Parts: sequence; structure tokens; C-alpha cells
Amino acid sequence: MATSRASFSLRRLLLGPPLPTVAMPHQTVGKFVGLAVFSSDALSSVAYATEEILVVLSVAGAAYFGLSIPIALAICGLLAILTASYRQTIFAYPSGGGAYIVARDNLGELAAQTAGAALMIDYILTVSVSVASGVAQIVSAFPRLAPIRVELALAMIAGMALVNLRGVRESGAVFAIPTYFFIVTMLGTIAFGLYRLLTGHLGTVTDVPPVPATTGQALTLFLILRAFSSGSTALTGVEAISNGIQAFREPKSRNAAATMVWMSVLLATLFLGITVLAHHIRAIPAEDETVISQIARTVWGRGPLYLTTLTATTVILIMAANTSFADFPRLAALHAADGFLPRQFTIRGSRLVFSWGIVVLASVASLLVVIFRASVTHLIPLYAIGVYLSFTLSQAGMVVRWLKIGRLRPDEVVETKGSVLRYDPHWRWKLAINAVGAASTFVVMIVFAVTKFTSGAWIVTVLVPLLVWIFFRIHHHYEDVRRTLSLKDKPVRTEPAPVIHMVLVSDVNTASLEQIRFVRSLGVPWFGVHVAVDEAKAEVVRSRWERYVPDGTLIVLPSPFRDLVGPIREYVEALRARHPEAFIHVVMGQIVAEHFLEQALHQNATVIFALALRHIPGVAVTNVVFPLHAPQQAPAPHPAAAVASADE
Amino acid sequence: MATSRASFSLRRLLLGPPLPTVAMPHQTVGKFVGLAVFSSDALSSVAYATEEILVVLSVAGAAYFGLSIPIALAICGLLAILTASYRQTIFAYPSGGGAYIVARDNLGELAAQTAGAALMIDYILTVSVSVASGVAQIVSAFPRLAPIRVELALAMIAGMALVNLRGVRESGAVFAIPTYFFIVTMLGTIAFGLYRLLTGHLGTVTDVPPVPATTGQALTLFLILRAFSSGSTALTGVEAISNGIQAFREPKSRNAAATMVWMSVLLATLFLGITVLAHHIRAIPAEDETVISQIARTVWGRGPLYLTTLTATTVILIMAANTSFADFPRLAALHAADGFLPRQFTIRGSRLVFSWGIVVLASVASLLVVIFRASVTHLIPLYAIGVYLSFTLSQAGMVVRWLKIGRLRPDEVVETKGSVLRYDPHWRWKLAINAVGAASTFVVMIVFAVTKFTSGAWIVTVLVPLLVWIFFRIHHHYEDVRRTLSLKDKPVRTEPAPVIHMVLVSDVNTASLEQIRFVRSLGVPWFGVHVAVDEAKAEVVRSRWERYVPDGTLIVLPSPFRDLVGPIREYVEALRARHPEAFIHVVMGQIVAEHFLEQALHQNATVIFALALRHIPGVAVTNVVFPLHAPQQAPAPHPAAAVASADE
Repeated sequence: MATSRASFSLRRLLLGPPLPTVAMPHQTVGKFVGLAVFSSDALSSVAYATEEILVVLSVAGAAYFGLSIPIALAICGLLAILTASYRQTIFAYPSGGGAYIVARDNLGELAAQTAGAALMIDYILTVSVSVASGVAQIVSAFPRLAPIRVELALAMIAGMALVNLRGVRESGAVFAIPTYFFIVTMLGTIAFGLYRLLTGHLGTVTDVPPVPATTGQALTLFLILRAFSSGSTALTGVEAISNGIQAFREPKSRNAAATMVWMSVLLATLFLGITVLAHHIRAIPAEDETVISQIARTVWGRGPLYLTTLTATTVILIMAANTSFADFPRLAALHAADGFLPRQFTIRGSRLVFSWGIVVLASVASLLVVIFRASVTHLIPLYAIGVYLSFTLSQAGMVVRWLKIGRLRPDEVVETKGSVLRYDPHWRWKLAINAVGAASTFVVMIVFAVTKFTSGAWIVTVLVPLLVWIFFRIHHHYEDVRRTLSLKDKPVRTEPAPVIHMVLVSDVNTASLEQIRFVRSLGVPWFGVHVAVDEAKAEVVRSRWERYVPDGTLIVLPSPFRDLVGPIREYVEALRARHPEAFIHVVMGQIVAEHFLEQALHQNATVIFALALRHIPGVAVTNVVFPLHAPQQAPAPHPAAAVASADE
Repeated sequence: MATSRASFSLRRLLLGPPLPTVAMPHQTVGKFVGLAVFSSDALSSVAYATEEILVVLSVAGAAYFGLSIPIALAICGLLAILTASYRQTIFAYPSGGGAYIVARDNLGELAAQTAGAALMIDYILTVSVSVASGVAQIVSAFPRLAPIRVELALAMIAGMALVNLRGVRESGAVFAIPTYFFIVTMLGTIAFGLYRLLTGHLGTVTDVPPVPATTGQALTLFLILRAFSSGSTALTGVEAISNGIQAFREPKSRNAAATMVWMSVLLATLFLGITVLAHHIRAIPAEDETVISQIARTVWGRGPLYLTTLTATTVILIMAANTSFADFPRLAALHAADGFLPRQFTIRGSRLVFSWGIVVLASVASLLVVIFRASVTHLIPLYAIGVYLSFTLSQAGMVVRWLKIGRLRPDEVVETKGSVLRYDPHWRWKLAINAVGAASTFVVMIVFAVTKFTSGAWIVTVLVPLLVWIFFRIHHHYEDVRRTLSLKDKPVRTEPAPVIHMVLVSDVNTASLEQIRFVRSLGVPWFGVHVAVDEAKAEVVRSRWERYVPDGTLIVLPSPFRDLVGPIREYVEALRARHPEAFIHVVMGQIVAEHFLEQALHQNATVIFALALRHIPGVAVTNVVFPLHAPQQAPAPHPAAAVASADE
């Protein structure tokens, strides 16, 4: 009791008091706040995307860094396609059009589970990559912290997990302030940088270890595509709004679509601005200083505005990681509710959050941070395949949806799970937009997988099918259980059966006499059983039994191998074989100590017995609890207890 | 079932088939084999003792290395005192005179527990130090293995743990061959080395990083005492024979005593020989090559005899570590049988060994190896305090025993737990021997603790009292429980009590109908209880209940905080308060999947309920098992099942 109360208090201190179910929030936001809430993931990617392009190009040499600008332009083109494509999803699925839902609705279960698996991997990586990049910004400003990179990242993840287990009130301000702070700071940096560039006052970055102009390695198409892949991580998170349409004020779809366009424009501006500035100041990707830090240092000088820029970047990265803490548990709960993940993911904890999802996300993200030593460059090859796979599936789903619509009569209306199908005269044109979106993201995914295969992408190409297989295995099990438990079209057995009562005793003492008193109180025939692990002890038990339980039979089972459970299991199985219709009722006693450390001093054989007997049908195992320290005061009667005693 | 069978097979493969209790070995050995069995721990210490003296002296400079010889002579003097003192213990405690037994018999429980704690720490360190030194010998011969020192040490410990879990048949040959192999090899090395020295052909060691002749740091008395302390680890293990007298042939005590003298002579010869040779070849303590390796290389040259010497040394070190795998579990079982350690330490596993002791020893020793990076020099300051503390207590106990004997009448005989007291006319002289032994080991212990305090000895000075405190806390708990469970002078309650039966259901399905069928079969009044974690679900349960269980009452407990166990606990406590005399019988259902991975997909709420209810006295919790996959065939009847059914 003491322990559970102590652990309860600690939990309450960390997580706060429990919240009743009726406290579930229902809150909507406008476009201004909505942009802040849903864009941190997408916008924060600019903190590392340019840098990762340069990392790849540096393999050939600094002379090729100028290529980053056409690459960034190509990525912005892709962004335009994606935005057009996703705007259509927002209108088609006003109640929320995540890849899982769209794929399920149009492409079937396999595509949906694949999209889900890809998204989950992506959410986990969002946490790892964003936190790693956040730490890299901090280390750029405070190089002394470099040796504790990994520890800093782990502390951040743990802190986020705790905050989310407490439950974040997604009040707009919490998101609006840091997101707009980042947007304003970064636009300011870009604007002032361009002003200095145009007036000829922008210098180049100093104090950075140089990269040779040419390394002798040829600039192959493969390398350019690889750089493009790295940069394409800038688009991770653009789908966020399509998941969260329900959070917008009416007209939801229109507000969400407008916000999506604004977000894309902002993202393109920031990404291009940073890439252009990085090129002009001759930024060099380095282990200990991020490109953002190099830009801010060159534009503002080492002063308060430099630190402000890095702070804003770090904060937006943390916000981005935090969105995964909302999205991953929600997606996992969706899968679990459909029976493709353990049911426990659907349980809302005492603070109304999906605790399991939060804990799993934080654990796996932490593991990745440890394995990849909190390095963005090492994590990047795993990232984005999942995103582009889900993009592809979601848009391919939309293509199928337009095909269905094309086949409708003008007045026909069909309702699917998350969408309403109505004939649309422009369906061919809209199909084309989604088809272009699907095709281009598919190509990017393949490019990504091929160019990054050996540096980590292979992990994801193995993991996605493996996860999908596991999801279906889980589903299969739940379906099995559902059929077994279902009462439909089954004869219901209600007739009483004979019950064989046996009392398992390890000794004759106050605890075992309490077991016997319980079975006596049932008013049924019974007998005692003792396993003779130790022959000498068995003799003592037998003689004590004769003295204290003269009216009961005691059966002593031999155990030549000192095995406690084997003889009992065999005995119960033998009884079952002789009396297949009967229940076998095994009464055990459990000594309960006040403290779990004390409990560990006891053999706790009841747990072992229960495990050993649980595979035998028709067995009922009773634990007669024997608390060594009984509670000192009786609690106040429960209101419902009166009802019960009236019914007895 | 599949899992337990699979894990059972793996266990059987690693550990072998279970052994019946009657297979417990009873084997005795003569002096020749006895020397091999009990001296590996003591003799193996020469592999590092000389080196550790030099490590300390090197702080002042290589010019002072000659001091190692007088220090070694002083340690041999101490060995002579110890041998004389322990011979008396061997005759006084013919059934085994370990420090724990002698201290308990003469100085009381506190001294005994202190000696036991000291010995346990010592046994653990014997494993860590011997394995670390063994790895150091291997690395000396194969420097490429240096980076995986820690891994090698851990693999060795794991291997030893496995062998000991299988159960070592302590057949003499297994010990005799490696021990005599080491004795012969080492004596041969010393003899050939001295021969080359006397004929003027022994050179000095080459290819070792030099130590400056003087470092500028003064040679203080403190430093000399510190070097002496390091060297005194050579005597660890000399007490082994006094623990194992029972293993000798009759006359046990005389054989054991003679073996002890032989062992001491051998130990002194090897230790002095190695120290003298080390001095003459100008051996230098180095990180990557042991002094033994330097001696062997200089005496034999880099050839097969060099490798033979290192192999013999490594093997004897492993044998030494292995003796702890016999001694630690035995000592822990002794403590546990007296109620000072968890009872689980007394359980013999399927292979008749004390599995818990073996696992705990291997785990803690591995932890030390990891913490101290498998470095003998870093581990040494923790070692030997425990040994010398137990030496002191054991011999102080003997002093008290002689005082008792001095007070006896010539014809009086007194029996104590492990010894028989008879008047002895020479008692004053014998008391003096033990007193000198106790005093000198006490002084060495203090010297050790002071000179090594800051480099690690402080850990042991904290740990011993802490362990003793824990031992007494455990004892206190067991005594408490014994008193609570004891039936002596207590009224035995046997009269039946009323029983309130409730069936806990999460849904109405085949599993819960089986629960209801069980309680119906008891032929008693009962009612159902459902916790409304989800209001909508509760409505479904209520309507299904009305359809399938029209004759039963269902109580739905509200749960605004979605807490499953809280409402039940409060309800049961309230029932208890209203019916303090009654048993509350809670019938739960447990869905049992075939595989534990499948089981993890279910909430397993029964476990949580059982934990929540176990502190309430008078509660009996029944699990009606519902295996999803019932076994396909009924097993053959158990012979004893016939008896039971006859008695029903």
C-alpha cells in the first residue's frame, strides 16, 4: 500500500491530477493560429535541408555548391505540385484526410497499413531528426556542449514525453508565439542578408574548416540526385494540415486549404532564401556548426540577434518534434482501434492522453538518437522515404477516388467512411493533378531509396513491409479472439458443472489455515495438496496437518527433481482427463508484504503456479490473500456497496 | 505452451537434463588432489601481487623497485602467522571453519554477518580480479586483443556462470591437472631463471616503456605501506582449506592441516621467486604486458615455453575465479537458511546448484569488470579489505574460543554449533598464536583501508556496514513473518464465514459466461460487476447481460477518470467495511493466448486487479482460465489423481 501510494504521488506530481472523461477539449482555430499549429513540422525542416544538400555536394567539392540553388528550385516545384494535390484532399475529406484514411478508403487495407507504417516511422524520425538538429543549433552557439550532444537530445525527448503525458492543452498561443517568432526572425535574417548582399556589404563566413574546391570525385548524376533527396526532406510535414482539418473554424475545408497555400509559400520563401544566402556567404557544412548558425553569424555578427535566430530555430525544431507527440499516438490509436496494433494504444491515461503511444514514440526516438549519436546527417537517409511513400499512397488514393467519381451519374451521391462522392464535371483535370502528385512523389521516393540505400535507407525498406506484416498478424489474432469470444450463433453453456476443490499448501500456518477456512466457507467437499520438494519438510507438513486439520485429506505429491509446479500441473491435467466436465478449483494462498522489496523476499509461488496452470481449460485458480500488515482503519462505505448487499 | 516448451528446450540444451535430489554427490579427496582443489585461489594471486607492488613503487621511481623483495618477505612472514593460526581453526572446526561459522560460534550474530558480508564482497572481487588478470595475460601474448579486454572478461564470466549452472562435478582431475600444470610450469620458470641468473646469462627485459629512476616524489612510509597492501593480496584465498575440511579423506583435520602447510610453502616459494626474478630482469609494470609475461619472455624467450607459462597462468586464474562460483552460492545459501538473505538463495535448481547465487555473483562481477574496464590495478584497492576483515574476525573468534576452553574443568566437554570444546593444557600458547594472527591481519586491514582509501577502499568500508544492515533488515522481516504465520499459542479460526461472490466482467462473451458458469457451479448467491470505463460500452454490456444472463444482477460502477481498478478497490473495501467477517470472493476471467507475444496484445487486467486487491484482508481472487487454444489431447492420468478422486 505504502509503495503504490508513494508511486502514485510521484506520478501525480509529474503528471498532475487525473482528468475526468468529460474534460476532453473541443476547440477550433482560425487561419492565423492554424498556420502556427500545423506548420512547425514543415517550416522547421529548413533548419537542416540546405545543409544536407551541401553535405552531399561536398563529396565532389565546394566548387559545386552553387548547384544547391537549382536543386532547391526543383524541390520548390515539387512543393507546388504537392500543395495543389493536397488542397484537393482537404476538400475531399473534410473530416480529416490523412494518408491512412485516404488509402483505406480507396486502395484497401494493405495500402492503408503500408501508409500507416510509413507514417509511424516518419513520426518517430521527425522527433529524432528535429531534436538532433535542435541540439546542433545549441552546440553551434555553445561549442563546449558538443561532448554531451546525445545526453542533451535524450533530455529533450524525455522532457517532451513528460509534457505530453501531462497532456498539452493545444491552446493556440503556445504554438503561435514560437512559430511566428521563427517566421519573423528567419524572414528578417533573409531580408537583411539579401539587403547586405545587394548593397555589397555581405561578407563570407569565417572560422569554418574549408572544403577543397574539387575532391577529384566526379559530379555524377547519382550525386546530384542524392543531394536532391537530402534536400527533399524540407517537405516533410506539409501534409499536417490535411490531417487536422477538423481543428479549423467553419468553413473548415476552405480555411484549411488557404492555410496550406500560405504555409507552402512561406516554406518555399524560407528554403530558397536560406539556400541563396548559404551560397553567397560560402557556408560550409561542418560537424560543429550548422549552416543556419553560419548564416546568422555572417548576417548579424556575433551578437544578440545571432543568438535570437538560433533560439528561434531551436524552438521551432522542438515544436516540430512535439507535433509527432500529438500525431503518432493518435495514428497508433487509429490502427489499434481497427485491431492492427495492440489495443493498449487506444487507452486514454489519467490525463486523457494516449500514454502508450507517447511512451513508445519517446523510447524508439531515443534509441535512434543513441544509435546515430544525435547526428542529423546520419539520420537523414532513414527519413523521408516514409513521408514520400505516404504521399504517394495518399495521392494514388485520390486518383482512384476521381475515377470512381467519373463513373457516377450527375445526381448520384455515394458515402464512404470519411468522404462523400458526388459527380464533378472537372474530375479529369483534378485526377490529373493528383496523378502528377502521386507520380512525382513516387519518383522522389525511388530516387531517395536508391541514392541513400547503403547509407541507411535499406533499414526503412525492410522495416515498412515488416511492420505491415506484424500489423496483419496482430489483426489476425484479434479477429481470431473476437470469433472465439462471440456469442453469436453459439449454444450458450449455462448448466452448472461439478467442481473439484483442492487447497494447495506449502506449510500449515495461519496463512494456509485461512485458505482452508475459505474453502470450508464454500460448504463443499475439498482436499489439500502439498508438493514434496523437500522430503523432510513434507513430513513436518504432514504431521502438522494431522494436528491442525484432522478432518481434511492431504495428498503429498512427490517431486524428485525439486520442481514445484511440474507435479501440480501433471496432477491437475490428470484430474481433467478423468473428469473432463468438471471445473478444477485450485485454492492458493498469497502472503502479501507491505513493501515490494519485502515481497521480493518471498517465493511468490502463486504467480508461478498461475502461469503453469493457465493453459488448462476448466481450471479456476483462487488466491486467498493474506496481508502481513492489515490496513489499520476500515474505509468509508462505497455508495454502490449498499446496492450490492441488498442484492445478496 | 509452445513458448514454455521452447524455452525449456533451450534451457535443457544449455544446462542439461534435470538431476534428481538423490544424485547429490558425496565425494572425498586425498591431500594431493585436495591441494589442487583448494589452492588455485591462493596460488593464482602470485600472477598479479608482485606487479601491483611495483605499480605503487613506480610512483616514486624505478630506483626503488628493489624494495619489492623485503616487502615480499614481510608478506611471507604474515603468511606463516596466518598458516599457524588457521591450522588451529582446522582442528577446532572439523566440519568446516569458515569465518562466518567461527565468528557466529564465538562472537555472535553481528560479527558473523560482518564476516559474511566481507567474504561475499571478497568472492565477487576474486572473480573480477582473477578474470581481469587472466585477460591481461592473454593480452600480453596477443596485444591485438587489447581493445576487447572488457568483452573478453565478460565472455569468460558468462562462460563460467553457464558451466556452474550446469553443475560442476568437482572431480579431482578437473582441478588437479591445471593446478599442477601451473605449479610445475611456474617452478620451472623460476628455477631456470635463477639458474640463468647465477650463471650470469639472464638479461633484462626489452621493449617495455621505461619508468624514470626517480620521479621527484619522495619514497614515504605511506607509499611503502601502500605497496605492502597491494602485495598482501597474494594471501587472498589461503583460508579456502579451512572451509572445505569435510571434502578431505579421514583423518579429515590432519589431512587438511597438512595440505594447508604445503600450500603455504608453495605460495611463498612462487611469490618470492617471481618477485626476485622480476627485480633482476628489471621488470616494469605496464598497461599492455604483465610482469609474468615479461619474466617468461626473458627467461624462455618468445617461444612455446613462453606461451605455455602464460597459458598455465591464465588457466589457474580462471580456476581461481571458478572457486568463487562454488563458495559464494554456498555462503549465500548459508546466510539465506539463517534468514539473512532472500530464501531464494537456498533453492537448488534443476541441476542441483544454487542458481540464484551463481547468477548474482556473475552479474555483480560483470558489473565491476565494466565499471573498472577490466583493470587489475583499478580493482585491487577494493580487494583484500574484505579478506583481511574476515581473517581478523575468524581468528578473534578463535581467541574467544581458547578463553572459553581455559575456563573449562579438565573433564568437561561443551558442544557448540560447529565445534566441541575440551580442556587443553596448551590453551594459553594456542590462544597466543591466534591472537598474533588476529592482531596482524587487523593491522594489515587498517593499513590497507588507510593507504587505499581514496583509490577505492572507501567503497568497501561503506559497503560492508550497509550489507550488514540489509542482512539484519531481511532477518527482521523473516522473523516478523514467522511470528505472524506461527500457529503456536494462537486460537485457530476454523469456523466457516459468509462469502460474498462477485463476478467481474469487462464484456458479455464466451469467456465471461464461463466465469458465470463457474460461480453457478458453486451453487451460491452471486452478482456481476462491470466498471464503466467507457459509458457507451457499459450500455452495450448492460443490454447483452439482460439477454444472456437474465437471472443475474449486474452492478455497473461509474469511473469518471477511466480508472479500471480504483472503483473496484473502493467497492471491495466498502463491502469489507459493511461485512467485516465475510470473505469477498472476486471471480475474474483470464483470456490465455498460446504465445506470450499474443498475450501481450491483451490488457491482462486480471494481473492489475490482483495487485490492487491484494492488500485487503479477507479477499479471495479467482481466475477462471479461458485458453483460446485448448490443448488438443488429454494427458495420461497422474498416478496420484486416482487417490484424489477416491476421496472426493
